[in-house]
Amino acid sequence: MGCYVPAVLPLPAVGWSPTQRALRILDQRHLPGAEVVRDLVALEDTIDAIRTLAVRGAPAIGVAAAIGLVVALEEAHAASPSVPLPPLVHAWGARLAAARPTAVNLAWAVARLRRVAEAAGAHAPAGALLAALRAEAEAIRGEDVAMGEAIGTHGLSLLPDGARVLTHCNAGALATAGGGTALAPVYAAHALGRRVTVYATETRPLRQGARLTAWELHRAGIPVTVLPDGAAAALLASGAVDVVLVGADRIAANGDVANKVGTRGVALAAQAAGVPFIVVAPGSTIDPATPHGDAIAIEHRPAEELAPLPDGVGAWNPAFDVTPRALVTGYLTDRGFAEPPFLE
Amino acid sequence: MGCYVPAVLPLPAVGWSPTQRALRILDQRHLPGAEVVRDLVALEDTIDAIRTLAVRGAPAIGVAAAIGLVVALEEAHAASPSVPLPPLVHAWGARLAAARPTAVNLAWAVARLRRVAEAAGAHAPAGALLAALRAEAEAIRGEDVAMGEAIGTHGLSLLPDGARVLTHCNAGALATAGGGTALAPVYAAHALGRRVTVYATETRPLRQGARLTAWELHRAGIPVTVLPDGAAAALLASGAVDVVLVGADRIAANGDVANKVGTRGVALAAQAAGVPFIVVAPGSTIDPATPHGDAIAIEHRPAEELAPLPDGVGAWNPAFDVTPRALVTGYLTDRGFAEPPFLE
Repeated sequence: MGCYVPAVLPLPAVGWSPTQRALRILDQRHLPGAEVVRDLVALEDTIDAIRTLAVRGAPAIGVAAAIGLVVALEEAHAASPSVPLPPLVHAWGARLAAARPTAVNLAWAVARLRRVAEAAGAHAPAGALLAALRAEAEAIRGEDVAMGEAIGTHGLSLLPDGARVLTHCNAGALATAGGGTALAPVYAAHALGRRVTVYATETRPLRQGARLTAWELHRAGIPVTVLPDGAAAALLASGAVDVVLVGADRIAANGDVANKVGTRGVALAAQAAGVPFIVVAPGSTIDPATPHGDAIAIEHRPAEELAPLPDGVGAWNPAFDVTPRALVTGYLTDRGFAEPPFLE
Repeated sequence: MGCYVPAVLPLPAVGWSPTQRALRILDQRHLPGAEVVRDLVALEDTIDAIRTLAVRGAPAIGVAAAIGLVVALEEAHAASPSVPLPPLVHAWGARLAAARPTAVNLAWAVARLRRVAEAAGAHAPAGALLAALRAEAEAIRGEDVAMGEAIGTHGLSLLPDGARVLTHCNAGALATAGGGTALAPVYAAHALGRRVTVYATETRPLRQGARLTAWELHRAGIPVTVLPDGAAAALLASGAVDVVLVGADRIAANGDVANKVGTRGVALAAQAAGVPFIVVAPGSTIDPATPHGDAIAIEHRPAEELAPLPDGVGAWNPAFDVTPRALVTGYLTDRGFAEPPFLE
């Protein structure tokens, strides 16, 4: 099965530019109003794109950091061939990793490139080192695309012709270099000619569902309807949904799931309505070292995301919540369906 | 116990102007940015205020219509003493009632004034008729204030010192001529010196929680924190809430509750967390003629309320949802606590 994305999106959310000399991104700050494509070479531009959420979604951030580091190093070498590259890999990698300190895939991708540089040694020829780094960045990108394809293939059984899906936030093509995670089965079923319709929660406060999920599905020709987060329980109770597909930021050993705030409420409503609630994520999202959801630290975001608020009124604005294992019907990864406990 | 509102808000949401010759409203279209007070006399101005949600909340709309009709009639009589008033009561009442056709209290308040005019007869002296209409409008206003005070008094047992409340949408002073419905116990406890803190859901799409509930509680000196609708399940699970207080648009005979969309999800999350979920509403909200929630027609609102959306993407945007009786811990009205079934 090929990559679904070139057929459904104008381009992947992150990848190489056609010249192979730049990081090409679809700037998500302009969605859904405009499709702005940017080719980035300078390290500062890649850092800025990650920091300002022009690129977002854990897998996409990792791919962007890897490609962005390689093209910046190649340009530096072309401009000053005598500058030693291994120290740059470390220093620039550290600056990239600091762009969003809580993004696990970012540090992980940078660490992979650093290990390549270490394995090559301090005196490796620059050309050979750059080629090895480029190959590693392409591997990171290719693995991400293959991950989405594997999830999509394994998830086809969830989506017969006519299936009606509810999803929360954006775990789609825009969050990866390929066809997404939670939405990968939707794209796979659509590619096979099955009619699939999707309900997307708005996902306050940053509206990733209304801005991103709705945009990418509509762009791919898949019918999509947006609803306020508060309407999910009524929609599920109405019988309009066959299956809920959501992503995950981390899955604990016991099966508890950290994901975008609001996921827990959707899970409770799905259980009350008797609708299957499926967590869809890369296998790397499972963290056997986290015993249960209570062990996951939840990042809190600024009150300004809920603006405007009356002067002097504060906000409780966690980025994530924890859905307990008892509310999850199934876990789908690129390795297929899985059941907790998730041990080493 | 006196009216709480003069002590906590700059003025009631609706009432008589100090001269008694105008309808005075706090224009809610400008909240929370500015406190704009408007005195309305012309019938068109009152209709416009109701239609554009400058006045909102079922009880407040009823009071506004009653006072607005009386002051408009008085002005018409002063300008043209020979114009017969009973036909004007009927014609202008019909125009008022059409300003928001689904607002039950609006038609109900207009009908009360029409009955006064009918009882007086077609040849009643204008001065006596206007005095009777003014007395009826004042009765409607006074009953609304008394309703809130009664709810507040009965609800004091829910809110010991230090109580932490979660509410959804706005069923506060801004929705009535007095101290609100669901928030009436909060104001009553605050007036007795009890420390009460409130969490208010943002309440998408129109943000009544962030704009109105947060504004009126903060204005009254009651600590209030806003959260995204999707965060309610996490907040309840965290143990930060002692009791949920929500209003109701209609309560069916079996106890099912129609209220602002999102209420059902909050109820599911409260049940999962073991937090009492109390529906607080005027006794008139109970409709014994509606056997259960499935019999309640749900109004759907335009997709524009969820704007911006990608071009071509639609929305599922119901104004209300139905919370089943099994999720409701208690029902509090101005007549005290009640239990279904609610029969005639």
